[in-house]
Amino acid sequence: MPTVEIITIGTELLLGDIQDTNSRFIAQKLKEYGYDLFRISTVGDNQDRISQLLREALQRSDILITTGGLGPTVDDPTREAVAQAFNLNLVFHEDLWEQITERFQIRGLAVSENNRKQAYIPENSFAIKNKYGTAPGFILPIKQKYVICLQGVPQEMEKLLLEEVIPFLLKTIPPAHFLFSKTLHAIGIGESVLDSMVGKYEKLSNPTVGLLAHAGMVDIRIVGSGTTREAAAL
Amino acid sequence: MPTVEIITIGTELLLGDIQDTNSRFIAQKLKEYGYDLFRISTVGDNQDRISQLLREALQRSDILITTGGLGPTVDDPTREAVAQAFNLNLVFHEDLWEQITERFQIRGLAVSENNRKQAYIPENSFAIKNKYGTAPGFILPIKQKYVICLQGVPQEMEKLLLEEVIPFLLKTIPPAHFLFSKTLHAIGIGESVLDSMVGKYEKLSNPTVGLLAHAGMVDIRIVGSGTTREAAAL
Repeated sequence: MPTVEIITIGTELLLGDIQDTNSRFIAQKLKEYGYDLFRISTVGDNQDRISQLLREALQRSDILITTGGLGPTVDDPTREAVAQAFNLNLVFHEDLWEQITERFQIRGLAVSENNRKQAYIPENSFAIKNKYGTAPGFILPIKQKYVICLQGVPQEMEKLLLEEVIPFLLKTIPPAHFLFSKTLHAIGIGESVLDSMVGKYEKLSNPTVGLLAHAGMVDIRIVGSGTTREAAAL
Repeated sequence: MPTVEIITIGTELLLGDIQDTNSRFIAQKLKEYGYDLFRISTVGDNQDRISQLLREALQRSDILITTGGLGPTVDDPTREAVAQAFNLNLVFHEDLWEQITERFQIRGLAVSENNRKQAYIPENSFAIKNKYGTAPGFILPIKQKYVICLQGVPQEMEKLLLEEVIPFLLKTIPPAHFLFSKTLHAIGIGESVLDSMVGKYEKLSNPTVGLLAHAGMVDIRIVGSGTTREAAAL
Protein backbone atom coordinates (compact mmCIF):
# COMPACT_ATOMS: atom_id res chain seq x y z
CA MET A 1 0.00 0.00 0.00
CA PRO A 2 1.63 3.27 -1.08
CA THR A 3 2.51 5.70 1.72
CA VAL A 4 2.48 9.44 1.38
CA GLU A 5 4.19 12.35 3.12
CA ILE A 6 3.21 16.00 2.94
CA ILE A 7 5.86 18.73 3.12
CA THR A 8 4.68 22.30 3.54
CA ILE A 9 7.31 24.90 2.75
CA GLY A 10 7.42 28.46 4.06
CA THR A 11 9.25 30.46 6.71
CA GLU A 12 5.95 32.26 7.46
CA LEU A 13 4.63 28.90 8.73
CA LEU A 14 7.57 28.47 11.13
CA LEU A 15 7.03 32.00 12.41
CA GLY A 16 3.37 31.21 13.08
CA ASP A 17 2.35 34.13 10.84
CA ILE A 18 -0.17 32.01 8.95
CA GLN A 19 -2.08 28.82 9.74
CA ASP A 20 -1.18 25.86 7.52
CA THR A 21 -4.50 24.68 6.08
CA ASN A 22 -2.94 22.97 3.05
CA SER A 23 -1.79 19.86 4.89
CA ARG A 24 -5.22 19.24 6.40
CA PHE A 25 -6.91 19.62 3.01
CA ILE A 26 -4.48 17.18 1.38
CA ALA A 27 -4.80 14.78 4.35
CA GLN A 28 -8.57 14.69 3.98
CA LYS A 29 -8.37 13.95 0.27
CA LEU A 30 -5.76 11.23 0.78
CA LYS A 31 -8.07 9.54 3.30
CA GLU A 32 -11.01 9.90 0.93
CA TYR A 33 -9.11 8.20 -1.88
CA GLY A 34 -7.55 5.49 0.31
CA TYR A 35 -3.92 6.65 0.57
CA ASP A 36 -2.04 6.18 3.83
CA LEU A 37 -0.47 9.41 5.12
CA PHE A 38 2.69 8.68 7.08
CA ARG A 39 3.97 12.09 8.14
CA ILE A 40 3.51 15.85 7.66
CA SER A 41 6.54 18.15 7.85
CA THR A 42 6.94 21.91 7.67
CA VAL A 43 10.23 23.62 6.81
CA GLY A 44 11.30 27.17 6.03
CA ASP A 45 12.39 28.67 2.69
CA ASN A 46 15.86 27.20 2.95
CA GLN A 47 17.14 25.21 0.00
CA ASP A 48 19.52 22.95 1.95
CA ARG A 49 16.97 22.08 4.63
CA ILE A 50 14.23 21.36 2.10
CA SER A 51 16.62 19.26 0.05
CA GLN A 52 17.67 17.21 3.10
CA LEU A 53 14.04 16.64 4.12
CA LEU A 54 13.08 15.53 0.59
CA ARG A 55 15.85 12.94 0.53
CA GLU A 56 15.01 11.45 3.92
CA ALA A 57 11.25 11.46 3.25
CA LEU A 58 11.60 9.68 -0.08
CA GLN A 59 13.51 6.88 1.65
CA ARG A 60 10.49 6.28 3.92
CA SER A 61 7.57 6.93 1.60
CA ASP A 62 6.39 6.39 -1.97
CA ILE A 63 4.77 9.73 -2.66
CA LEU A 64 5.83 13.20 -1.48
CA ILE A 65 3.48 16.12 -1.92
CA THR A 66 4.99 19.55 -1.27
CA THR A 67 3.23 22.90 -1.15
CA GLY A 68 4.82 26.33 -1.43
CA GLY A 69 8.09 27.82 -2.62
CA LEU A 70 7.19 27.94 -6.34
CA GLY A 71 6.95 31.73 -6.67
CA PRO A 72 9.32 33.93 -8.70
CA THR A 73 11.54 35.30 -5.91
CA VAL A 74 14.81 34.18 -4.32
CA ASP A 75 12.69 33.17 -1.32
CA ASP A 76 11.02 30.45 -3.42
CA PRO A 77 13.55 27.60 -3.44
CA THR A 78 11.42 24.47 -4.01
CA ARG A 79 12.53 23.88 -7.62
CA GLU A 80 16.19 24.30 -6.68
CA ALA A 81 15.80 22.13 -3.57
CA VAL A 82 14.29 19.24 -5.56
CA ALA A 83 17.05 19.53 -8.15
CA GLN A 84 19.69 19.55 -5.39
CA ALA A 85 18.13 16.64 -3.48
CA PHE A 86 18.16 14.28 -6.44
CA ASN A 87 21.11 15.66 -8.45
CA LEU A 88 19.07 16.96 -11.34
CA ASN A 89 19.36 19.97 -13.61
CA LEU A 90 16.60 22.52 -13.96
CA VAL A 91 15.28 22.64 -17.51
CA PHE A 92 13.61 25.62 -19.20
CA HIS A 93 10.21 24.83 -20.76
CA GLU A 94 9.21 27.18 -23.57
CA ASP A 95 5.52 26.23 -23.27
CA LEU A 96 5.46 27.08 -19.55
CA TRP A 97 7.08 30.42 -20.25
CA GLU A 98 4.47 31.18 -22.91
CA GLN A 99 1.70 30.33 -20.49
CA ILE A 100 3.16 32.53 -17.76
CA THR A 101 3.61 35.44 -20.19
CA GLU A 102 0.05 34.99 -21.41
CA ARG A 103 -1.37 35.13 -17.88
CA PHE A 104 0.41 38.43 -17.27
CA GLN A 105 -0.83 39.84 -20.56
CA ILE A 106 -4.45 38.88 -19.77
CA ARG A 107 -4.17 40.76 -16.48
CA GLY A 108 -2.58 43.74 -18.24
CA LEU A 109 0.69 43.39 -16.32
CA ALA A 110 4.27 43.35 -17.52
CA VAL A 111 5.94 39.97 -16.97
CA SER A 112 9.19 40.39 -15.06
CA GLU A 113 12.46 38.62 -15.80
CA ASN A 114 12.15 36.97 -12.33
CA ASN A 115 9.15 35.03 -13.59
CA ARG A 116 11.34 33.16 -16.08
CA LYS A 117 12.47 31.17 -13.05
CA GLN A 118 9.00 29.63 -12.91
CA ALA A 119 9.38 28.12 -16.38
CA TYR A 120 12.23 25.90 -15.13
CA ILE A 121 11.43 22.49 -13.64
CA PRO A 122 13.77 19.59 -12.76
CA GLU A 123 14.78 17.30 -15.64
CA ASN A 124 12.70 14.08 -15.93
CA SER A 125 9.70 15.82 -14.38
CA PHE A 126 6.56 16.98 -16.15
CA ALA A 127 4.66 20.16 -15.45
CA ILE A 128 1.28 20.57 -13.81
CA LYS A 129 0.05 23.59 -15.75
CA ASN A 130 -1.64 26.12 -13.53
CA LYS A 131 -4.69 27.82 -15.00
CA TYR A 132 -5.42 29.48 -11.64
CA GLY A 133 -2.13 31.34 -11.16
CA THR A 134 1.34 31.84 -12.63
CA ALA A 135 3.40 29.20 -10.79
CA PRO A 136 3.36 25.78 -12.53
CA GLY A 137 3.67 22.68 -10.34
CA PHE A 138 5.44 19.50 -11.40
CA ILE A 139 5.61 15.74 -10.89
CA LEU A 140 8.99 14.04 -10.71
CA PRO A 141 9.01 10.22 -10.96
CA ILE A 142 12.02 8.56 -9.26
CA LYS A 143 12.21 4.75 -9.37
CA GLN A 144 8.46 4.02 -8.97
CA LYS A 145 8.20 6.84 -6.44
CA TYR A 146 6.86 10.36 -7.01
CA VAL A 147 7.75 13.85 -5.83
CA ILE A 148 4.81 16.17 -6.50
CA CYS A 149 5.31 19.92 -6.03
CA LEU A 150 2.27 22.15 -5.69
CA GLN A 151 1.67 25.83 -5.01
CA GLY A 152 1.34 27.33 -1.53
CA VAL A 153 -1.75 29.40 -2.41
CA PRO A 154 -4.64 27.21 -1.14
CA GLN A 155 -7.07 28.24 -3.91
CA GLU A 156 -4.62 27.08 -6.60
CA MET A 157 -3.23 24.06 -4.75
CA GLU A 158 -6.64 22.60 -3.85
CA LYS A 159 -7.97 22.73 -7.42
CA LEU A 160 -4.82 21.29 -8.98
CA LEU A 161 -4.69 18.53 -6.36
CA LEU A 162 -8.21 17.42 -7.25
CA GLU A 163 -8.06 17.99 -10.99
CA GLU A 164 -4.53 16.81 -11.75
CA VAL A 165 -2.74 15.07 -8.89
CA ILE A 166 -5.40 12.70 -7.52
CA PRO A 167 -6.35 11.40 -11.02
CA PHE A 168 -2.64 10.91 -11.78
CA LEU A 169 -2.09 8.95 -8.56
CA LEU A 170 -5.17 6.76 -8.99
CA LYS A 171 -3.98 5.81 -12.47
CA THR A 172 -0.26 5.46 -11.74
CA ILE A 173 0.09 4.25 -8.16
CA PRO A 174 -3.40 3.22 -6.97
CA PRO A 175 -4.09 2.58 -3.29
CA ALA A 176 -4.18 -1.11 -2.35
CA HIS A 177 -7.73 -0.64 -1.21
CA PHE A 178 -10.37 2.02 -0.91
CA LEU A 179 -12.30 2.72 2.24
CA PHE A 180 -15.97 3.58 2.21
CA SER A 181 -17.73 4.48 5.43
CA LYS A 182 -21.33 5.29 6.24
CA THR A 183 -22.90 6.09 9.60
CA LEU A 184 -26.59 5.45 10.28
CA HIS A 185 -28.29 7.08 13.26
CA ALA A 186 -30.92 5.11 15.20
CA ILE A 187 -33.30 7.02 17.47
CA GLY A 188 -35.85 5.53 19.88
CA ILE A 189 -34.13 2.15 20.20
CA GLY A 190 -31.57 1.07 22.81
CA GLU A 191 -28.03 -0.07 21.99
CA SER A 192 -28.60 -3.57 23.37
CA VAL A 193 -31.82 -4.09 21.35
CA LEU A 194 -30.10 -2.77 18.22
CA ASP A 195 -27.10 -4.98 18.95
CA SER A 196 -29.36 -8.05 19.02
CA MET A 197 -30.76 -6.99 15.63
CA VAL A 198 -27.52 -6.22 13.76
CA GLY A 199 -25.27 -8.54 15.78
CA LYS A 200 -24.74 -10.94 12.91
CA TYR A 201 -23.37 -8.10 10.77
CA GLU A 202 -20.97 -7.06 13.52
CA LYS A 203 -19.08 -10.31 12.94
CA LEU A 204 -18.34 -9.48 9.30
CA SER A 205 -14.83 -8.44 8.36
CA ASN A 206 -15.81 -6.53 5.21
CA PRO A 207 -17.74 -4.39 5.76
CA THR A 208 -17.15 -3.95 9.46
CA VAL A 209 -20.17 -2.85 11.45
CA GLY A 210 -19.92 -1.14 14.83
CA LEU A 211 -22.30 0.49 17.27
CA LEU A 212 -21.63 3.66 19.26
CA ALA A 213 -24.12 4.90 21.86
CA HIS A 214 -24.71 8.63 22.38
CA ALA A 215 -27.28 10.39 24.54
CA GLY A 216 -30.65 9.43 22.98
CA MET A 217 -29.12 7.98 19.83
CA VAL A 218 -27.05 5.04 18.62
CA ASP A 219 -24.70 5.29 15.64
CA ILE A 220 -24.20 2.31 13.35
CA ARG A 221 -20.92 2.74 11.50
CA ILE A 222 -20.36 0.62 8.40
CA VAL A 223 -16.90 0.60 6.81
CA GLY A 224 -16.27 -1.32 3.60
CA SER A 225 -13.06 -1.74 1.63
CA GLY A 226 -12.41 -2.76 -1.95
CA THR A 227 -9.91 -2.46 -4.78
CA THR A 228 -12.05 0.24 -6.41
CA ARG A 229 -14.21 2.93 -4.88
CA GLU A 230 -17.30 1.26 -6.30
CA ALA A 231 -16.39 -2.14 -4.84
CA ALA A 232 -15.82 -0.55 -1.44
CA ALA A 233 -19.27 1.01 -1.53
CA LEU A 234 -21.09 -2.24 -2.43
CA MET B 1 21.50 29.88 19.14
CA PRO B 2 19.28 27.02 20.32
CA THR B 3 17.06 25.50 17.63
CA VAL B 4 13.64 24.02 18.29
CA GLU B 5 11.42 21.44 16.58
CA ILE B 6 7.74 20.89 17.19
CA ILE B 7 6.25 17.40 16.89
CA THR B 8 2.45 17.10 16.93
CA ILE B 9 1.20 13.59 17.61
CA GLY B 10 -2.19 12.18 16.60
CA THR B 11 -3.64 9.94 13.91
CA GLU B 12 -6.65 12.30 13.74
CA LEU B 13 -4.25 14.95 12.37
CA LEU B 14 -3.02 12.65 9.58
CA LEU B 15 -6.63 11.83 8.68
CA GLY B 16 -7.40 15.55 8.43
CA ASP B 17 -10.19 15.13 11.02
CA ILE B 18 -8.97 18.11 13.01
CA GLN B 19 -6.90 21.19 12.23
CA ASP B 20 -3.55 21.36 14.05
CA THR B 21 -3.56 24.75 15.79
CA ASN B 22 -1.01 23.75 18.45
CA SER B 23 2.03 24.07 16.24
CA ARG B 24 1.10 27.57 15.11
CA PHE B 25 0.53 28.71 18.70
CA ILE B 26 3.89 27.32 19.80
CA ALA B 27 5.59 28.80 16.71
CA GLN B 28 4.25 32.26 17.54
CA LYS B 29 5.50 32.05 21.12
CA LEU B 30 8.93 30.79 20.06
CA LYS B 31 9.26 33.77 17.73
CA GLU B 32 8.10 36.13 20.47
CA TYR B 33 10.75 34.84 22.86
CA GLY B 34 13.54 34.66 20.29
CA TYR B 35 13.84 30.90 19.66
CA ASP B 36 14.58 29.63 16.16
CA LEU B 37 12.05 27.03 14.96
CA PHE B 38 13.71 24.58 12.55
CA ARG B 39 10.93 22.17 11.62
CA ILE B 40 7.40 21.06 12.47
CA SER B 41 6.42 17.39 12.08
CA THR B 42 3.17 15.51 12.53
CA VAL B 43 2.97 11.75 13.10
CA GLY B 44 0.22 9.32 14.07
CA ASP B 45 -0.30 7.44 17.34
CA ASN B 46 2.36 4.88 16.54
CA GLN B 47 5.05 4.25 19.13
CA ASP B 48 7.78 3.14 16.70
CA ARG B 49 7.24 6.02 14.31
CA ILE B 50 7.18 8.61 17.09
CA SER B 51 10.28 7.09 18.64
CA GLN B 52 12.17 7.19 15.33
CA LEU B 53 11.17 10.80 14.73
CA LEU B 54 12.27 11.85 18.24
CA ARG B 55 15.70 10.33 17.71
CA GLU B 56 16.30 11.97 14.36
CA ALA B 57 14.93 15.36 15.50
CA LEU B 58 17.14 15.47 18.61
CA GLN B 59 20.19 14.97 16.40
CA ARG B 60 19.29 18.12 14.48
CA SER B 61 17.90 20.37 17.19
CA ASP B 62 18.37 21.38 20.84
CA ILE B 63 14.78 21.47 22.02
CA LEU B 64 11.88 19.22 20.98
CA ILE B 65 8.35 20.18 21.97
CA THR B 66 5.72 17.49 21.42
CA THR B 67 1.96 17.78 21.81
CA GLY B 68 -0.54 14.95 22.20
CA GLY B 69 -0.48 11.26 23.07
CA LEU B 70 -0.47 11.75 26.87
CA GLY B 71 -4.00 10.43 27.55
CA PRO B 72 -4.83 7.23 29.46
CA THR B 73 -5.57 4.88 26.53
CA VAL B 74 -3.51 2.48 24.45
CA ASP B 75 -3.77 5.06 21.66
CA ASP B 76 -1.66 7.49 23.71
CA PRO B 77 1.91 6.29 23.18
CA THR B 78 4.03 9.43 23.74
CA ARG B 79 5.45 8.37 27.13
CA GLU B 80 6.36 4.92 25.77
CA ALA B 81 7.80 6.39 22.57
CA VAL B 82 10.11 8.76 24.47
CA ALA B 83 11.25 5.90 26.72
CA GLN B 84 11.89 3.71 23.65
CA ALA B 85 13.71 6.44 21.72
CA PHE B 86 16.27 7.11 24.45
CA ASN B 87 16.39 3.69 26.18
CA LEU B 88 14.78 4.82 29.41
CA ASN B 89 12.41 3.17 31.87
CA LEU B 90 9.06 4.66 32.77
CA VAL B 91 8.91 5.52 36.46
CA PHE B 92 5.74 5.72 38.58
CA HIS B 93 5.36 9.03 40.47
CA GLU B 94 3.18 8.77 43.58
CA ASP B 95 2.58 12.55 43.67
CA LEU B 96 1.34 12.59 40.08
CA TRP B 97 -1.02 9.71 40.84
CA GLU B 98 -2.37 11.59 43.87
CA GLN B 99 -2.96 14.67 41.75
CA ILE B 100 -4.76 12.68 39.04
CA THR B 101 -6.94 10.91 41.65
CA GLU B 102 -7.76 14.25 43.25
CA ARG B 103 -8.88 15.79 39.97
CA PHE B 104 -11.29 12.90 39.39
CA GLN B 105 -12.65 13.22 42.94
CA ILE B 106 -13.26 16.97 42.52
CA ARG B 107 -15.27 16.26 39.40
CA GLY B 108 -17.18 13.46 41.20
CA LEU B 109 -15.82 10.79 38.84
CA ALA B 110 -14.28 7.42 39.60
CA VAL B 111 -10.62 7.25 38.56
CA SER B 112 -9.98 4.26 36.29
CA GLU B 113 -7.02 1.91 36.47
CA ASN B 114 -6.06 3.15 32.96
CA ASN B 115 -5.30 6.55 34.40
CA ARG B 116 -2.42 5.08 36.45
CA LYS B 117 -0.56 5.08 33.15
CA GLN B 118 -0.49 8.88 33.28
CA ALA B 119 1.48 8.83 36.55
CA TYR B 120 4.45 7.21 34.75
CA ILE B 121 7.07 9.41 33.09
CA PRO B 122 10.52 8.52 31.67
CA GLU B 123 13.35 8.27 34.21
CA ASN B 124 15.54 11.41 34.49
CA SER B 125 12.61 13.59 33.50
CA PHE B 126 10.56 15.86 35.72
CA ALA B 127 6.83 16.38 35.55
CA ILE B 128 4.94 19.45 34.38
CA LYS B 129 1.96 19.23 36.72
CA ASN B 130 -1.29 19.96 34.94
CA LYS B 131 -3.84 21.95 36.91
CA TYR B 132 -6.07 22.24 33.84
CA GLY B 133 -6.56 18.53 33.11
CA THR B 134 -5.50 15.04 34.16
CA ALA B 135 -2.52 14.35 31.87
CA PRO B 136 0.81 15.59 33.28
CA GLY B 137 3.48 16.70 30.83
CA PHE B 138 7.21 16.27 31.38
CA ILE B 139 10.64 17.66 30.53
CA LEU B 140 13.49 15.24 29.79
CA PRO B 141 17.02 16.72 29.74
CA ILE B 142 19.47 14.78 27.52
CA LYS B 143 23.05 16.10 27.29
CA GLN B 144 22.22 19.85 27.32
CA LYS B 145 19.22 19.17 25.07
CA TYR B 146 15.56 18.96 26.10
CA VAL B 147 12.55 16.86 25.12
CA ILE B 148 9.39 18.56 26.34
CA CYS B 149 6.10 16.67 26.12
CA LEU B 150 2.84 18.57 26.36
CA GLN B 151 -0.84 17.73 26.07
CA GLY B 152 -2.78 17.72 22.81
CA VAL B 153 -5.75 19.66 24.22
CA PRO B 154 -5.02 23.26 23.17
CA GLN B 155 -6.56 24.86 26.30
CA GLU B 156 -4.20 22.86 28.55
CA MET B 157 -1.14 22.94 26.30
CA GLU B 158 -1.25 26.70 25.71
CA LYS B 159 -1.42 27.57 29.41
CA LEU B 160 1.32 25.14 30.43
CA LEU B 161 3.58 26.34 27.59
CA LEU B 162 3.34 29.93 28.81
CA GLU B 163 3.35 29.25 32.56
CA GLU B 164 5.89 26.43 32.76
CA VAL B 165 7.80 25.72 29.56
CA ILE B 166 8.78 29.20 28.34
CA PRO B 167 10.04 30.30 31.81
CA PHE B 168 12.00 27.03 32.05
CA LEU B 169 13.60 27.57 28.63
CA LEU B 170 14.48 31.23 29.26
CA LYS B 171 16.24 30.23 32.47
CA THR B 172 17.90 27.02 31.26
CA ILE B 173 18.68 27.47 27.57
CA PRO B 174 18.13 31.16 26.76
CA PRO B 175 18.00 32.33 23.13
CA ALA B 176 21.23 33.90 21.90
CA HIS B 177 19.32 37.04 21.14
CA PHE B 178 15.84 38.47 21.31
CA LEU B 179 14.12 40.04 18.35
CA PHE B 180 11.99 43.11 18.64
CA SER B 181 10.14 44.43 15.61
CA LYS B 182 8.00 47.47 15.04
CA THR B 183 6.30 48.63 11.87
CA LEU B 184 5.48 52.29 11.25
CA HIS B 185 3.01 53.26 8.53
CA ALA B 186 3.65 56.39 6.48
CA ILE B 187 0.76 57.92 4.53
CA GLY B 188 0.94 60.84 2.06
CA ILE B 189 4.62 60.42 1.28
CA GLY B 190 6.23 58.42 -1.51
CA GLU B 191 8.67 55.55 -0.99
CA SER B 192 11.53 57.33 -2.72
CA VAL B 193 11.08 60.53 -0.66
CA LEU B 194 10.89 58.48 2.52
CA ASP B 195 13.91 56.51 1.41
CA SER B 196 15.92 59.69 1.10
CA MET B 197 14.86 60.64 4.64
CA VAL B 198 15.52 57.38 6.47
CA GLY B 199 18.21 56.07 4.11
CA LYS B 200 20.98 56.51 6.67
CA TYR B 201 19.10 54.20 9.07
CA GLU B 202 18.68 51.57 6.36
CA LYS B 203 22.44 51.02 6.50
CA LEU B 204 22.39 50.04 10.19
CA SER B 205 22.81 46.39 11.11
CA ASN B 206 21.06 46.64 14.49
CA PRO B 207 18.34 47.65 14.27
CA THR B 208 17.69 46.92 10.61
CA VAL B 209 15.34 49.33 8.88
CA GLY B 210 13.45 48.46 5.72
CA LEU B 211 10.76 50.07 3.57
CA LEU B 212 7.83 48.28 1.95
CA ALA B 213 5.46 50.13 -0.39
CA HIS B 214 1.76 49.33 -0.47
CA ALA B 215 -1.05 51.08 -2.33
CA GLY B 216 -1.20 54.56 -0.76
CA MET B 217 1.09 53.70 2.13
CA VAL B 218 4.70 52.85 2.93
CA ASP B 219 5.66 50.58 5.84
CA ILE B 220 8.87 51.19 7.74
CA ARG B 221 9.89 47.99 9.51
CA ILE B 222 12.42 48.27 12.33
CA VAL B 223 13.88 45.07 13.75
CA GLY B 224 16.25 45.19 16.72
CA SER B 225 18.02 42.36 18.50
CA GLY B 226 19.64 42.12 21.91
CA THR B 227 20.62 39.66 24.60
CA THR B 228 17.55 40.62 26.65
CA ARG B 229 14.07 41.61 25.52
CA GLU B 230 14.65 45.10 26.91
CA ALA B 231 17.94 45.55 25.04
CA ALA B 232 16.30 44.45 21.80
CA ALA B 233 13.60 47.08 22.21
CA LEU B 234 16.01 49.96 22.86
